[in-house]
This record gives sequence, C-alpha cells and structure tokens, in this order.
Amino acid sequence: MESQINREYHLVARPVGQVKESDFQLIHAPIPVPGPGQAVARTLYLSLDPANRVWMNERASYMPPVKLGDVMRGFGMAQVVASNNPQLPVGTVVQGLTGWRDYLLIGDGAEQMMPVVSGLQIPLATMMGVLGITGLTAYFGLTEIGKPKAGETVVISAAAGATGSVAGQIAKQLGCRVVGIAGSDDKCAWLTQELGFDVAINYKHADWQKQLGAACPAGIDVIFENVGGEILDASLARINLHARIILCGLIASYNAEAPVPGPYNFGNVLMRRGRIEGFIVTDFVAKFPAAVMQLAQWHLAGKLKHRDTIVDGLQLAPTAINRLFDGSTTGKLLIKVADAPLPIP
Amino acid sequence: MESQINREYHLVARPVGQVKESDFQLIHAPIPVPGPGQAVARTLYLSLDPANRVWMNERASYMPPVKLGDVMRGFGMAQVVASNNPQLPVGTVVQGLTGWRDYLLIGDGAEQMMPVVSGLQIPLATMMGVLGITGLTAYFGLTEIGKPKAGETVVISAAAGATGSVAGQIAKQLGCRVVGIAGSDDKCAWLTQELGFDVAINYKHADWQKQLGAACPAGIDVIFENVGGEILDASLARINLHARIILCGLIASYNAEAPVPGPYNFGNVLMRRGRIEGFIVTDFVAKFPAAVMQLAQWHLAGKLKHRDTIVDGLQLAPTAINRLFDGSTTGKLLIKVADAPLPIP
Repeated sequence: MESQINREYHLVARPVGQVKESDFQLIHAPIPVPGPGQAVARTLYLSLDPANRVWMNERASYMPPVKLGDVMRGFGMAQVVASNNPQLPVGTVVQGLTGWRDYLLIGDGAEQMMPVVSGLQIPLATMMGVLGITGLTAYFGLTEIGKPKAGETVVISAAAGATGSVAGQIAKQLGCRVVGIAGSDDKCAWLTQELGFDVAINYKHADWQKQLGAACPAGIDVIFENVGGEILDASLARINLHARIILCGLIASYNAEAPVPGPYNFGNVLMRRGRIEGFIVTDFVAKFPAAVMQLAQWHLAGKLKHRDTIVDGLQLAPTAINRLFDGSTTGKLLIKVADAPLPIP
Repeated sequence: MESQINREYHLVARPVGQVKESDFQLIHAPIPVPGPGQAVARTLYLSLDPANRVWMNERASYMPPVKLGDVMRGFGMAQVVASNNPQLPVGTVVQGLTGWRDYLLIGDGAEQMMPVVSGLQIPLATMMGVLGITGLTAYFGLTEIGKPKAGETVVISAAAGATGSVAGQIAKQLGCRVVGIAGSDDKCAWLTQELGFDVAINYKHADWQKQLGAACPAGIDVIFENVGGEILDASLARINLHARIILCGLIASYNAEAPVPGPYNFGNVLMRRGRIEGFIVTDFVAKFPAAVMQLAQWHLAGKLKHRDTIVDGLQLAPTAINRLFDGSTTGKLLIKVADAPLPIP
C-alpha cells in the first residue's frame, strides 16, 4: 500500500528553463519513527508556488537553494500520525515546509511547522490557500508594504493567481479601485464578475497597455507585483507621486536562462519618488494568528472567494510546477497527497 | 556694461544626447522693474545639476519639462537689488529657481526663493553647495530614506560628485563604513585621504567589481545611488537583507537616446527584501533650517569638506552642463554669474 512507503522527491539537477521530471529522483525511504520529543506527520497537501522554482536554482534567494540530492523543499499541510511531543498530539494538522514527500519528522529543528487554526469549519485546501501562506502574503503585502488608502488605485499583476486574486479582494475591502492584469478573458471575467475587481485586463490583447491607462484615469498609487518584465513596466509608466510597489514576485524571470533586465521605467521611481519594496510573508509571522482570523472573517462573509487547482498525487509535483508559468491555472495550485488518515480534532 | 542688460538663455531645442549651445537662444531682455510687492534680484551663482539635463527632455520628471522658448530652469543664488517687498529688503541673498539669466523678478508667484541663512561667515559658493541644495539632498537622502545605522556599510556612487561627496562624509558622521565609487584615481585619493571614506573604488579599473566585493566584506546595507546602470547593478548584487537603496539620481541614463533597462539585479530587491526609494530634497523643506545648521556645524568643525568647480560666466552654462556627465568635475559645479553688487547684510 502506497502509504506504507515514504516517497521522497530529491532534486538531482538544476532545471534549465522549464522543470523536467529528470531533475528529480524518486526515493522510497522508510517512514520515519519519532524519537524523544519528535513527531511524524503525513503530508496531505503540497502548495506549488513560484518560490519552489526559485529554490531549484543555484543562486541564493530569500532561502538558500535546495542542495542537489536533498528532498525538494516545499510548503505543505500534514497531519501528525505518531508523536512523542505533547505539543503535537496525534491528529493535529500543521502547515510549514513539509517538503515533497509522504512523511516527515517534526521536532528535529529542521522544520518549522505551525498548527493550523482549528474550529473554523473551513476545508483544509482552503486553509492552505486563501487562509494560508498565500492569503497571508496578499494580506501583509498590502497592509504592511503597500498600505493603500481608500480611494487609491491598486494594480495587481498575475491577478488570477493564488496571491493576486486574494490581494485584489483585500484591496476592495480596503476601499480601493482595483485593476487586475491576467492572461485570459476567462480569468478576467472571473476577476470582475465574481471577485469584484473594478477592471481586469487581458495582457494578451494587443492594446492592453492602452486599456491599463484607461482603467487608471487617476494614475496608479499601489502596484502589487507578481510578474515583472513588461507587465511591471506598463504599470510603472503610470505611477503617481509617492507610489508604492509591493514586490511580491517576478515570475517572468524565474525560468530565464540569461540575465533579465530590470524595468525600463525604473527611472520613474526616482522621478515620481516611488518606493519599491520586497518582502516575504514570514517577516510577519508574529501577526499570523490575527491575520488568519481577519481572512477567515472575510471568507465566511463571502468577501474572499477563491478557486483552487488541485492536482491529485505527489508523483505529479515535478510536472505540475510548470503550470505556474504557463497560465494554465487559476487561483491556488495544490497537490493533493493524501486524505487525512485520522479524524481532525 | 554687462550688468545693464539682462541676458536670458531660452531653451529652443530638446537636446539629443549631449547638450549643444544651439539648443539655447540668448535673449537680451530689459532688466525687470519690480511692481507692487515685487523685488528684482541679480543672479550671483547658478548651480549646474543633473536635474537641469532632465528638465530639457520632453518627458515629465518631478518637475514638468522646460517649455521650448522659456528661460532655462535652474537653481541659483541671487541678491535683491530693487524691492517693493518688505520681506525681501535690498541686499538680501536668496536661493531658489533663478533660471539661467542675470536678473529675475521675485514675488510674482512663479519663483520660490528662500533667503540664505545669514551670519554664518561662510562663502556664498559654499552656501550653494555643501550647505545648500546639494548638501541637503545628501542629508535628507541618508537621514530620511536610507537611515543607516552605525556600523552598517554604505556604498555611494558618483562619490566625488557634489552630492556623493557630502553623503559619504555624513555617513561617516553617522558611524558607518563608507565605500565610494568614482571615475578616477585622483578622485578616489581625494575621497579616502581628505574626506575620510573607508575605501574608494575607480570603476574604470577592470576588476572594480571584485574590489567592491572586497571593500564590503559584510555586504551592503545602504546604497546612495546617483548613477544607475552597471554601477547600481554591482551594488545590488551585494545587498544584505533589508537593504535600503536611496534613489537620488540616475545620471547614466539622462543623456540616453533610447530606453535604458533597469538594473539586471532587480530581483535581489525581492529576494533580499530590499527597499528602493526615490525622493527630492524639496519633500523636506520644512526641515531645511535645522538641517542647514547641522551641516554648518559639521562644516565649521572640518568634518564636511568640499571642492567646487566654479566656471566663470553665465555664457558658459550651456556647455558646462555637459561636464556633469563626462567625469571632468569634482564636487559641486557652479557658474559664477556676478559678484554680489551690494553689501551682504
């Protein structure tokens, strides 16, 4: 039975461009046994994020690269199935860097796992996305970095993606005019008709930059940037004085095989006295519980909708990761690894 | 006698690349006569700044472009020679946007002229540079945008320029390790031997980027950026977590005839959660008087040295402006237009 072995995907080559299955080796390892103070958890979901792709590269990012031969690093959700740690009783559901594997050992210092806020009656997949690391990224990017004021115009790139779709809805809750940029008419329709974006622009239309200008008649005050490249440039061309650019991702460059130039309109940051700031969600870990409650409140009130793209089976992680970059997903991309083997407390 | 006519340099063509004399027309206008509440001032010094070059372009910057046919906009120092304004008695020395001309009318709402802080026994040329708009730019860039802490490493580009040379000395006063980047060995010697920079690097040496790495063994915490292009890229490659990039100027691109890409290491701002912020000194005008007193105190204590490149004669402004971009000046570039015609109160 599959659950009796521990499948681990080890990174064995640094991908060039798109990720290939041959960049990984599947190892059948024994299921770990918890030592004193340790616990073992069964992975339920893996989150596929652009950060995974970054970590496969040689270059240091906000975390070091995954070493060749190591289990691929990844964020996920897991349930404790054996425990010698009273803080982590059997059945507890946790989130954190599970890695691309069926079972993991917790408590050896290598992992930072947080219990999932319980009692919310919200599906686990939702807790991974809109109420998890993705929703928190959108929340802190806006509230701690961009700080849009009611009435300001916020432009969001990769707006139909996991983070962008949440960021846009939060910006609406904050009273902003919200303009999304996405890669298909279907995605744009979802953004405006279901998520309440004021305007959504398909950047595959030839006149999309003109549309962006028309959608922002008072200029752009805040950019929630997930893409970079010409998408960021189009927004930078239209920034107002003291604009804030939340640098959340630059997915246009993550698969690049040669150095990628920065935005051509970089000079506007000087001329219009803007601010560009990078961040990662873990900078704000102390504020996670309050933020999760706020996100849950909005979600339960119907103000934070989401779509998940759930791919079934750990073995699909090495290929599914490419879907983050080809426009074929909407919302959060998750790998379902297993149903929770035990009742959730 | 020259002082009986009012020479005005009007911008009549938008320069392509370097500025040419033919981009200007010299007009001999009458000396203005002050109406009720107005004053007339004689220009003493003009400040030549990269901003002048920016304003000659079609594109809006932090000020609108100079309209073709208008007197060239420029910062300068002038003395009131006739006045119907009790706030501006004859003899008062003022600073502000004098324009490239001998005489200007003050009080018609078109100019914002500030009286020079008097009683400091400091030469007027010094009041224009290290204690004027240049010194203030360095001061507020560091104290309001970069906020370096004692012990942090600050890298300054165009370090032997007017703003960079002051910024480096202020950073030393704040207890930082200061590394300057300049374009000649002579300039570098001046920075380290006279101004107290810890290291100065001549970017014309083939191995200068390696030298920069060696000069910043603990990485870079703050960049005071005046140049852009590959100079900024070399610094961005070495930023620490939460680095601050003070975007003061991008002179590498001001003469460009085609769009210039942003920094190739832009992604590091995301990965290392940096902050890039543009500013102009006039954002902090309310704090000018206190800042001038601080700068004067440092200057009088010998901790804020400077070099000025003073070019004699208004007629040289249209050609001298190019010297900001060819590396032929050290410190502040000024045009001396006239000696003060009246005693200075």
